[in-house]
Amino acid sequence: MKTMREVAAGMKAVSARMANQSLEKRNQALAAIADALEANQAAIYEANAADLKKAMEDNLPDPVIKRLRFDEHKLADVTKGLRDLIKLPDPLYREMMVRELDEGLVLHRVSCAIGVIGVIFESRPDALVQISALCIKSGNCAILKGGSEAMETNRTLFRTIATAAEAAGLPEGCLYQAEERSQINELLECHEYVDLLIPRGSNGFVQYIMNHTKIPVMGHADGICHVYVDQDADVEKAIRIVVDAKTQYVSVCNATETLLVHRGIAAALLPKLHAALREKRVEVRGTDDVRALIDCAEATEEDFATEYLDYIISVKLVDTLQEAVDHINHYGSHHTDAIVTENAESAEEFMQYVDSAGVYWNCSTRFADGYRYGFGAEVGVGTGKLHARGPVGLEGLVTYKYKLYGNGHIVDDYATGRKQFHFVDQ
Amino acid sequence: MKTMREVAAGMKAVSARMANQSLEKRNQALAAIADALEANQAAIYEANAADLKKAMEDNLPDPVIKRLRFDEHKLADVTKGLRDLIKLPDPLYREMMVRELDEGLVLHRVSCAIGVIGVIFESRPDALVQISALCIKSGNCAILKGGSEAMETNRTLFRTIATAAEAAGLPEGCLYQAEERSQINELLECHEYVDLLIPRGSNGFVQYIMNHTKIPVMGHADGICHVYVDQDADVEKAIRIVVDAKTQYVSVCNATETLLVHRGIAAALLPKLHAALREKRVEVRGTDDVRALIDCAEATEEDFATEYLDYIISVKLVDTLQEAVDHINHYGSHHTDAIVTENAESAEEFMQYVDSAGVYWNCSTRFADGYRYGFGAEVGVGTGKLHARGPVGLEGLVTYKYKLYGNGHIVDDYATGRKQFHFVDQ
Repeated sequence: MKTMREVAAGMKAVSARMANQSLEKRNQALAAIADALEANQAAIYEANAADLKKAMEDNLPDPVIKRLRFDEHKLADVTKGLRDLIKLPDPLYREMMVRELDEGLVLHRVSCAIGVIGVIFESRPDALVQISALCIKSGNCAILKGGSEAMETNRTLFRTIATAAEAAGLPEGCLYQAEERSQINELLECHEYVDLLIPRGSNGFVQYIMNHTKIPVMGHADGICHVYVDQDADVEKAIRIVVDAKTQYVSVCNATETLLVHRGIAAALLPKLHAALREKRVEVRGTDDVRALIDCAEATEEDFATEYLDYIISVKLVDTLQEAVDHINHYGSHHTDAIVTENAESAEEFMQYVDSAGVYWNCSTRFADGYRYGFGAEVGVGTGKLHARGPVGLEGLVTYKYKLYGNGHIVDDYATGRKQFHFVDQ
Repeated sequence: MKTMREVAAGMKAVSARMANQSLEKRNQALAAIADALEANQAAIYEANAADLKKAMEDNLPDPVIKRLRFDEHKLADVTKGLRDLIKLPDPLYREMMVRELDEGLVLHRVSCAIGVIGVIFESRPDALVQISALCIKSGNCAILKGGSEAMETNRTLFRTIATAAEAAGLPEGCLYQAEERSQINELLECHEYVDLLIPRGSNGFVQYIMNHTKIPVMGHADGICHVYVDQDADVEKAIRIVVDAKTQYVSVCNATETLLVHRGIAAALLPKLHAALREKRVEVRGTDDVRALIDCAEATEEDFATEYLDYIISVKLVDTLQEAVDHINHYGSHHTDAIVTENAESAEEFMQYVDSAGVYWNCSTRFADGYRYGFGAEVGVGTGKLHARGPVGLEGLVTYKYKLYGNGHIVDDYATGRKQFHFVDQ
């Protein structure tokens, strides 16, 4: 068996060819993968049954088992996803700028693939299909490491995908599946060959990756999202949004963890909202002034810095919009934060001053997602500020290069004043 | 005196206000800075004379002393740079995407400032002016640390700049100058407050920064640039380009260090080129087959991995364009590489397959520079692949946020199929 270092070095050598595959070839590969997954469905379900059996024997928690299941609905989802991805425009070879620097000297900024991307993801086997597909469409080579609970399913999916992709003409070795946990640490050492790592998993796991590699990491460490209900909010709208943002799916990064309420609307909002949250079995933890209005547990400093990923919400009253902004910028994770208000000016102020990848007005934080943004799918959500921020789809998987076309142009002519730049954008 | 941590924390608190300054206010500050530098020129020259005196007493090398000098020509350059920067379009509040996700639910991707940027730069005092100006125009707060050789000049320049900026209405504390070397290590620890570090200096220094901080670093470690002379090259054009790329300014990152020559043109090119390089006192180091054609020193494996920053060039023959590409992708630093050829197809192949921020056809690698690209100025050159690549001007100093405007929209409606997204770009 090859070491991870050998795999990564080999993939680096293949990456320039992968980056130069035509859109037609890349789309043909995606179509072939969709067909092959359908043709191989019996084997995929069988492998998934083995993973599910083992997961139940190991008493894994229900949410994990739910995410692990790969049935005909999931297959229909991923094949539809693949066919939708084919329709998306080419992220490569896009002319982002064309500028004539001087007569006969023309600068082009053109999008191109990043190269070799390592993705380490959790239990959902459909993630493997989505991520491979996004990497193929964007001309990148990919090293994939899925969760061990999904080992059999992932292996069958991967073999189906890699075989179909290579049969459709993509370079041999453009995709690789790592199965051993020890390979993750080997991968972290491969900074000469791997251009980008995308870890998807728990906060601790992502932090571990970031602290143990020189490879650039794109990922969010956690998602402490907020809803701020302004004094000019519509109470019914606020309840509807908070209930969705908290309960529509609690174990995901874009679920809301903290509710901030303007003191001027607290008495009108909180009792009704509390009733609505109780119906969904949400535990409310509030500051003292919240507890003066509703009967709930106490929220400590620690609560505001916690990503519950559970049916729990912390609540705090604020005197001003600015106080809400300051709280969010201090305790939040720069993921997604929403304001509920009928006042457009307050909404704009909130959206300008909150320093997060997503700033929302009168809608649920749960919309922060590549599919819902129309990106086809996502490889992850970035809470850093550089490169790609928020849900990351195809665009986050490309970079650019500057191509300069001349005809014997030298800098000395410009340094000595014989020639001048004129900068005309085309 | 405040600790660096206190400075950085305070700046973070100011950064949201700095990011929301109007274009008019930011441009007024730039104009005020240009005026103040002119008004204060006597004090600036006096401070610079003190630095120059000390540098000569300390026997600093001539190139350092040359870079250190800040005279009326430098002042004219930087004030012209400031006034040119005012004319550039606003990098902030740019609508990069507007997409209706569903009726009444509209997603905007809008450019915004990054926040707090730390810049550590070498001896040229004009860099302090340029970098402050770029940060102001892009709505960022900046912590600046210049070289100790330029201490007096930097101090006078910084006081002039900061005073003028605050008098023009920018938030107090939006700029800070660090003077002590020990503050660099303190700054590296401030990852909660500092969003981006831009080190400019030696390879070893940049590597040190990258290895000792959790803050994202934008910078190039080194610049091993290549010129490849293809078999279909015009010999005179090739000589002109190689001489410029090697000798126009040897101590900079975009100077060429290695020349690759197609075997089919070597006999026609090398003797003439060698004569031209000798005239400029360039030492040529070649492989055995190069030495069979011209009288030169031997190039070892190590030469091809070395950034000379000196009047030395390594030369190697290749059998094919692909061999040149492979050499560049292996030994290069992904900075800037050029092909000289009259064959457009070969040029395109080279530019597609070379994995560098700049890929040039028939022109000198020395063009890789923010000013020459029409960016006004640059804060540095990125050789990483994420965020900003190549010369980094205003655009590399901004990020973006997603603003989502709804009217009570919740995800549950879409998850349960009551509503569908329709994705219409506007």
